[in-house]
Amino acid sequence: MGIIACKSPSSKMRALILNFATRIHKLGKDDPRRIVHSFKVALAITLVSMVYYVRPFYNGLGENGVWAILSVVVVFEYTAGATLCKSMNRGLATFLAGALGVGAKFLASLFGTKVEPIVLGCLVFLLVAAATFSRFIPQIKRRYDYGVMIFILTFSLVAVSGYRVDKIIELAHQRLSTILIGGATCIVISVCVYPVWAGEDLHNLIVSNLEKLASFLEGFGGEISKLPLDGDSVDSSSVPEKSFLTAYKSVLNSKAMEESLANFAWWEPGHGKFRFCHPWKQYLKIGVVTRQCGYHIEALSGYVDANFQASSSEYTKRVQEPCTNISSEAGKALKELAHSLKSFSYPSKCTIHLQTCKGAVEEVNTMLKASMVGELDVLEIIPIVTLASILIEIVKCVETIFVIIEELSEQAHF
Amino acid sequence: MGIIACKSPSSKMRALILNFATRIHKLGKDDPRRIVHSFKVALAITLVSMVYYVRPFYNGLGENGVWAILSVVVVFEYTAGATLCKSMNRGLATFLAGALGVGAKFLASLFGTKVEPIVLGCLVFLLVAAATFSRFIPQIKRRYDYGVMIFILTFSLVAVSGYRVDKIIELAHQRLSTILIGGATCIVISVCVYPVWAGEDLHNLIVSNLEKLASFLEGFGGEISKLPLDGDSVDSSSVPEKSFLTAYKSVLNSKAMEESLANFAWWEPGHGKFRFCHPWKQYLKIGVVTRQCGYHIEALSGYVDANFQASSSEYTKRVQEPCTNISSEAGKALKELAHSLKSFSYPSKCTIHLQTCKGAVEEVNTMLKASMVGELDVLEIIPIVTLASILIEIVKCVETIFVIIEELSEQAHF
Repeated sequence: MGIIACKSPSSKMRALILNFATRIHKLGKDDPRRIVHSFKVALAITLVSMVYYVRPFYNGLGENGVWAILSVVVVFEYTAGATLCKSMNRGLATFLAGALGVGAKFLASLFGTKVEPIVLGCLVFLLVAAATFSRFIPQIKRRYDYGVMIFILTFSLVAVSGYRVDKIIELAHQRLSTILIGGATCIVISVCVYPVWAGEDLHNLIVSNLEKLASFLEGFGGEISKLPLDGDSVDSSSVPEKSFLTAYKSVLNSKAMEESLANFAWWEPGHGKFRFCHPWKQYLKIGVVTRQCGYHIEALSGYVDANFQASSSEYTKRVQEPCTNISSEAGKALKELAHSLKSFSYPSKCTIHLQTCKGAVEEVNTMLKASMVGELDVLEIIPIVTLASILIEIVKCVETIFVIIEELSEQAHF
Repeated sequence: MGIIACKSPSSKMRALILNFATRIHKLGKDDPRRIVHSFKVALAITLVSMVYYVRPFYNGLGENGVWAILSVVVVFEYTAGATLCKSMNRGLATFLAGALGVGAKFLASLFGTKVEPIVLGCLVFLLVAAATFSRFIPQIKRRYDYGVMIFILTFSLVAVSGYRVDKIIELAHQRLSTILIGGATCIVISVCVYPVWAGEDLHNLIVSNLEKLASFLEGFGGEISKLPLDGDSVDSSSVPEKSFLTAYKSVLNSKAMEESLANFAWWEPGHGKFRFCHPWKQYLKIGVVTRQCGYHIEALSGYVDANFQASSSEYTKRVQEPCTNISSEAGKALKELAHSLKSFSYPSKCTIHLQTCKGAVEEVNTMLKASMVGELDVLEIIPIVTLASILIEIVKCVETIFVIIEELSEQAHF
């Protein structure tokens, strides 16, 4: 880009377009399912708009056919779970609110034509206020937020519309059938044509988060043993290969993503190796401990960046070896856990790495205990001692993750 | 609840209802603006439904009045910024897509009645696919996601509907005016009647996050000096007053919240002490460093819980005093920063606390350097040494926050 900056406006334009095209290309390449999703939505809308062109449909539904298109646009989401959640919410809420609306209208008509609009206005006001407030209740917000919105919408429309009750029922029938057509089209296409499962995405996210932490720990083990040996050369030469040292950062902020995926996964039918009531909550638990572990790694990485060059004493080198061991064995254990989760198998090999890990922790502890050393500068040993104690905390996290995955394997029968 | 468990079904029911009522009451008490918001939405819908009851409106708009209600339900959000964002998006997208739809229809009509539906179908398919894909572009997703959805909706409706072009223009006019009525009602009510500003919420969130970290550090300073002195009594007696030791945890997961508030704040007009182009990005920067600081605190708290009881040597007690100082002075500096942000004043007092902090850090460093102590058990001093080094990291974070708030005060002229 720097070279292009001093060129003519037309080549600037070309560069801008090229830049845009590269970004679009990257977006599609990163996750080709995005392109498939775009065509799926287009397919659904084109199919539903057939309602207009095919005579028998049009005669039955008339202009209400637009509601089918509206449903598709609003309901079709990226993952199958989200689509299911929204269409179920929409269908149920429309049905419920429609029935209540007709009831309200009937009730109001008993008061005579003059008072009717006032009674209806009051009813709408109260019900809308109550429903809007209910959207703040966490349980409702999590699973039925969209449904409550559609409830408010349909109830107001039915209660307010200028029609009489008999015409409303006909209208409601048309509305419901168009919504059913729209919703069913969405569900069928999103579940049957290259489905994107929220549950599978959650599974993969958790696995990849574990792998990121594992790569950090394994790589970091290597770094510990290299760092103080060849002082300055480290800063310049090993920078390009240090990508594994920053990849873990995305783990720290994955909470919102995990929770929304788990919510949508709840709506999904069984697929692949996931059955209908797969213990998704267990994944959230793994997520919490993974982030916990990530915080420790964050502290470790920030601390080591700043302080590690200072120490290269004999003592440091001695403690360093078991620390290297702890880090890489904890990394291997995590990788094993990620692998077992990925392949739905019991994490049996992990116990070996955890044993080696604990052995190394013991070794560090006894080494520190044994060193009642008179000739030691306390300031000198601080970095390695801090390092060791943070690593010990990380091992505890890995053990907790092991226990949770064990529980998961029991609940999901693998 | 435990007492009620063995009662009859009717009293169980009563307990359930009571429980539900308490939770609803708490929800309203925690943030009374939620109740106000519910009534604002109800008011907006009741006002808009007047379109049906007032004759001149009804004659002009006919059944299209439902679109006004639909707009209100869909567009009215909790914060003024979100409402503005959605109504602007909706209005603009409807206008743009309507114009494009009429164009597409005109283009297709040139091909003759037989080919027209096929040409239109292809156009809809391509445009919908492209628009759906554009929702994956981060910049568009952040600010115009809703607009693109409405674009897809309106374009398909206009292009597909069975009308001829002249009728469409009349329809478009009605649609646009009802959307304008709905959108304007929402904007006026959400901006003028007890407005909830996303910007103000972001400001308060950042301030309260800083305050939470500050309370932890101040309180933790007190804990350090108490802990090893009266060994076991700590665990039992000080548990109830330890709420400040866990309050900071919410800071760790505030990223998603901060980002969405900053996005909505961008749409808001000037209000209170915030002008139209308030540097909201600066708040996001503060958020990042605050979380960084939170990670260190997390490491600190996890580490201290597990290890602190072990150490009560003379040496520990000696290093402890400057550590207590660092912690409480860092806490005071943060509190000062939070206070200055809250009151839009330059954080002048903060520099004093930061100076004291740095002094204490120096003190710890020299103390550690001086102690070439032969009679020391290394294992014994690990907890206090780790504590000190994490505290030093925290001081660095506080300094960074100070610099960012200084920049903010320059940009926002306070």
